[in-house]
Amino acid sequence: MQNPNQILTAVIMAGGRGERFWPKSRIRCPKQFLPLTGDGETMLQKTVRRVGGLVPPEQTYIVTNAEYMPLVREQLPDIPAENLLAEPAPRNTAPCIALAAAVIQKRSGNATMLVLPADHLVRHEEICSDVLCRAAAAAEETDSLVTIGITPTYPETGYGYIAFSRAKYLPRGVYQVDSFKEKPDAETARSYVNSGNYLWNSGMFVWKTDVFLDAVKTHLPAAYEIAAEIRDACDTDAFDAVLQKRFPDMPSISVDFGILEKTERLCTIPGSFGWDDVGSWPALRRVAKTDTNGNYRDGDIITIGTKNCVFSGREKLIAAVGLENIVVVDTEDALLVCDMDAAQNIKKITEMLREQGRGELL
Amino acid sequence: MQNPNQILTAVIMAGGRGERFWPKSRIRCPKQFLPLTGDGETMLQKTVRRVGGLVPPEQTYIVTNAEYMPLVREQLPDIPAENLLAEPAPRNTAPCIALAAAVIQKRSGNATMLVLPADHLVRHEEICSDVLCRAAAAAEETDSLVTIGITPTYPETGYGYIAFSRAKYLPRGVYQVDSFKEKPDAETARSYVNSGNYLWNSGMFVWKTDVFLDAVKTHLPAAYEIAAEIRDACDTDAFDAVLQKRFPDMPSISVDFGILEKTERLCTIPGSFGWDDVGSWPALRRVAKTDTNGNYRDGDIITIGTKNCVFSGREKLIAAVGLENIVVVDTEDALLVCDMDAAQNIKKITEMLREQGRGELL
Repeated sequence: MQNPNQILTAVIMAGGRGERFWPKSRIRCPKQFLPLTGDGETMLQKTVRRVGGLVPPEQTYIVTNAEYMPLVREQLPDIPAENLLAEPAPRNTAPCIALAAAVIQKRSGNATMLVLPADHLVRHEEICSDVLCRAAAAAEETDSLVTIGITPTYPETGYGYIAFSRAKYLPRGVYQVDSFKEKPDAETARSYVNSGNYLWNSGMFVWKTDVFLDAVKTHLPAAYEIAAEIRDACDTDAFDAVLQKRFPDMPSISVDFGILEKTERLCTIPGSFGWDDVGSWPALRRVAKTDTNGNYRDGDIITIGTKNCVFSGREKLIAAVGLENIVVVDTEDALLVCDMDAAQNIKKITEMLREQGRGELL
Repeated sequence: MQNPNQILTAVIMAGGRGERFWPKSRIRCPKQFLPLTGDGETMLQKTVRRVGGLVPPEQTYIVTNAEYMPLVREQLPDIPAENLLAEPAPRNTAPCIALAAAVIQKRSGNATMLVLPADHLVRHEEICSDVLCRAAAAAEETDSLVTIGITPTYPETGYGYIAFSRAKYLPRGVYQVDSFKEKPDAETARSYVNSGNYLWNSGMFVWKTDVFLDAVKTHLPAAYEIAAEIRDACDTDAFDAVLQKRFPDMPSISVDFGILEKTERLCTIPGSFGWDDVGSWPALRRVAKTDTNGNYRDGDIITIGTKNCVFSGREKLIAAVGLENIVVVDTEDALLVCDMDAAQNIKKITEMLREQGRGELL
């Protein structure tokens, strides 16, 4: 479907801290570098393998922060070193993608970019590939910013939503976006799902480099100026110095808030391929294999009268008796026991540890 | 109060397996040898210290099984070696006490015995001592078997009860026992407590050696015969051989079932001194200090929105989020997470481990 003369690239955002997966996810080795689903393949490796059928390694870019570069190199030996981009400071997704777009524009001109978070899961990978291909074709033909929407299967309150109009149908199963919606409460989420006019905001995007950088120029002009400097320095001796000096001056803002909510050029393509952002420990029950009592088990686990729990251990035996909706995560130096419905408060633990000066546990 | 010519002895039963305190309590070091309440003093040491005001070390006897002898010696260096009696095989409380009675009869004639479990707690130790003294005087004057009853403070379903008649009042605050009652259901427990005619069965007993051995002769004649052989061999070169050969032939039966339920000579003295059998992990919330949210904390514990839990850890951080009525016990090689109301099922874990041949975790 895609134009054979058009270069297709992948940009994988792998700079997150993954605090909601503490204590397995640590600042020195966060979620995307962990084999969270217990099959030995890390989230990042899964993501790269998933786009591997569409994009060759030499067109695959990883944006992460400098601290994680050794982890990226170790986990992705096939990606060329010059495609591993280190952010000198974390500045959220808009600067992250602008950095990649600047480098790609210098090297490959107006290539198409598949922009993907490094820490999401996809159950039906071939359907996902087909949707990304269609999105790429639509982005190329219409000069749109295309966001992959996910047909919601239940009223999740942990996701943002995309409102779209069936009336505004474009070719290739693409719709114009009406608006973005923040994470809703339970009742609003139900009304969204029932209406049929809302999709989950997956955080996966497809666009041409020029179209994206144009949007940055319009909506985040200060960031554009820096991106242009970085682009000009790319593949010269000045690159590292310019990146170190200028990137931290980018505004810290997400691509959703900074660009997508403001542009007129935004389209969405509804996908349905078992996507999950695996946003916190309870999500493992949705995305990974569970026992007949609905327990996710990774480790040496014995259960008695226990259901709908998440167990993530290591060599040590975990014995669970009479539990329901409990998360148990055991690591070398920290143990978490958490009610499933209180998982959003795990970050309060990491905040307390930070305040107490116990950074070695973060 | 006590006759100054009468010898008072203490027999501390320290052979239990403590399986309800798994995984802290292990077969190689069960509950009575652990500082369970977090103050550094083991349950056995507490028990010996508690009777120390009434009975000198040379009249204090410990009955345990051979495996635990090194632990007993280490924890109780002041008790003479010849007072440490090793059961060749576990045979429940009737043979345990008969063994001690046989040795005491040989050495001290018709001495009075305070028989105490090694793993219970007493908050008001001086009141406990006074009750034991009165019980000793009553046992000596009336040739009764005296069981210490505890005035119940709530309808506990985990204890046996003693039915007594106020009509059958004997001197020194002692009553004749009507019957023993097995652990009741919640409704029955409430009716017991409301009636005022029931006491908790504490498992603490007082009697003269001759009176007890007479009762053994009447109700467990086979055990008596063996006890008499052991008594005759006591403090001779034949003792160890006779003990090894004959003790295992004793019937395995509790003193409650085997003797106390059958004898006419049974009296009880109601005590009220903050007694607790500390029968399982949830009991620690009753007997030890808790935080303002009712959590028992032993270890490095951080809690968010967590109440009425029991945490027993070690150096490793335990982070609890949104928990209620949960027991978390972390050890080097096993972690237990258990709903408070399911604590009686902890033994199913140890049974499973035994079946799976994982004895190293027991």
